[in-house]
Amino acid sequence: MTEYFTEERSVEAVNSRMGQGVDPRLAEVMESLVKHLHAFAKDISLTQEEWELAIHFLTRTGHLCHDERQEFILLSDTLGLSMLVDAINNRHPPGATENTVFGPFHVEGAPVRQMGEKISLDGKGESCLFIGRVLDLDGNPIEGARIDVWSDNSDGFYDVQQPDIQPKWNNRGIFVTGADGVYSFVGIKPVSYPIPDDGPVGQMLASLGRHPYRPAHTHYLITASGYQKLVTHTFVGDDPYLESDTVFGVKNSLVAPFERVDHPTVWRSDFDFVLTPVENRQ
Amino acid sequence: MTEYFTEERSVEAVNSRMGQGVDPRLAEVMESLVKHLHAFAKDISLTQEEWELAIHFLTRTGHLCHDERQEFILLSDTLGLSMLVDAINNRHPPGATENTVFGPFHVEGAPVRQMGEKISLDGKGESCLFIGRVLDLDGNPIEGARIDVWSDNSDGFYDVQQPDIQPKWNNRGIFVTGADGVYSFVGIKPVSYPIPDDGPVGQMLASLGRHPYRPAHTHYLITASGYQKLVTHTFVGDDPYLESDTVFGVKNSLVAPFERVDHPTVWRSDFDFVLTPVENRQ
Repeated sequence: MTEYFTEERSVEAVNSRMGQGVDPRLAEVMESLVKHLHAFAKDISLTQEEWELAIHFLTRTGHLCHDERQEFILLSDTLGLSMLVDAINNRHPPGATENTVFGPFHVEGAPVRQMGEKISLDGKGESCLFIGRVLDLDGNPIEGARIDVWSDNSDGFYDVQQPDIQPKWNNRGIFVTGADGVYSFVGIKPVSYPIPDDGPVGQMLASLGRHPYRPAHTHYLITASGYQKLVTHTFVGDDPYLESDTVFGVKNSLVAPFERVDHPTVWRSDFDFVLTPVENRQ
Repeated sequence: MTEYFTEERSVEAVNSRMGQGVDPRLAEVMESLVKHLHAFAKDISLTQEEWELAIHFLTRTGHLCHDERQEFILLSDTLGLSMLVDAINNRHPPGATENTVFGPFHVEGAPVRQMGEKISLDGKGESCLFIGRVLDLDGNPIEGARIDVWSDNSDGFYDVQQPDIQPKWNNRGIFVTGADGVYSFVGIKPVSYPIPDDGPVGQMLASLGRHPYRPAHTHYLITASGYQKLVTHTFVGDDPYLESDTVFGVKNSLVAPFERVDHPTVWRSDFDFVLTPVENRQ
């Protein structure tokens, strides 16, 4: 006869129910999910009331999701899962620039600009020259690297969060390197900002004694033929939230210098990006 | 300096972020949740695409939840989590009747009826005499035990699923034992039915080669002063889905005999319920 459910063999009871011909990868994922889900409930002796609270939390999280808000991604971010998935899928060799989370604010189709051009178009914030090179693992410049950059404005919002405010494409731009691999552009020294915290995830953070802030950062998506896509940020080193990024995006190697120069921009930040060849994929 | 996030120490990075003064039980639950969530992602090297699919699945599950539908509970049920939580929180000693899941179809306030009375009021289905005793662990009858019973109708629906159909309280009733501990009532031999399978959970079951059916069962909620509440079912032993209950509710000890007697009812099902004293709580 079949194996009925017991507390001791709950995982086997569930996983043995899988039918024939199930996609092997799906079977692997679901078997592991059931194993870890049950181990969690057993390890902490989850009570009926806690289970009900969890059902209610997930329901409220789902109800808050719509076109402009993805509360489940915020949940994944604040539990470190988004960073973990990013890390698992983007293992770069030593010496290459590390990945970090993509985030929800990238927009396709930003204007391609000339090197040195300004992307901060609203005249607000402290201007900053971002400058450096795109290199291979041997330190050679990469020609034709496409640098897609975006950051928040001096109020801590991305342009897509304020669609009615002009000019368009504020603090966004694309730059393509020449033979010297050099890039440069004028943006602003970015500012820290909170993730949306008026929903279940914000309540969770509060109950865990955590703040909802991300330290100031500039986003980069860098692509070049023959190299792996690099999705990363550079962080402002003196940010008060640097050591407590609510989505865990900070890596030591991504903290960039911001030097006060006052002329022609207020700040200058030097940072070289090192790409991983496609054949190094792990 | 603080510990930034790394793939290797992702759990420590997240859990060390917890603030001071967090409720100790909440801290315990969340630390375990993060540990198992990250172990899951690592064990199977969760891809970015699978993560996106999971976010989308949870979002759709949340969107389907409303007053009359709880898709997250169905998800918990079909992954065996509901049964596991039930088992963890209702460990009865050997000889006592085992618990099983409560389910979503109980209604407070069913009519209290005299022993032997009929609860099947629509004249449909195959009539069945349910009869037995409520006992303590030593086999002594329990007086004043309150037996709240409910089942589906011959079409596989509970009355609350068909609120417009009369008579009210079809296949529901409450019976209180006398000094002999005996109970008896006339219902129907219940029928198997599918859980709602037109949403994400139904799609998950289909992709796992599983059907959405529950084997035929009668629900009981039995309370008596000095004894632990018993939430259980009895199952019809020849049901084709007995060994593949989609919510894993079946336990060997809960499979009841259904004997064909033809007069005065078509069937007769004998089952004794054994309650656990309050002081045995584990």
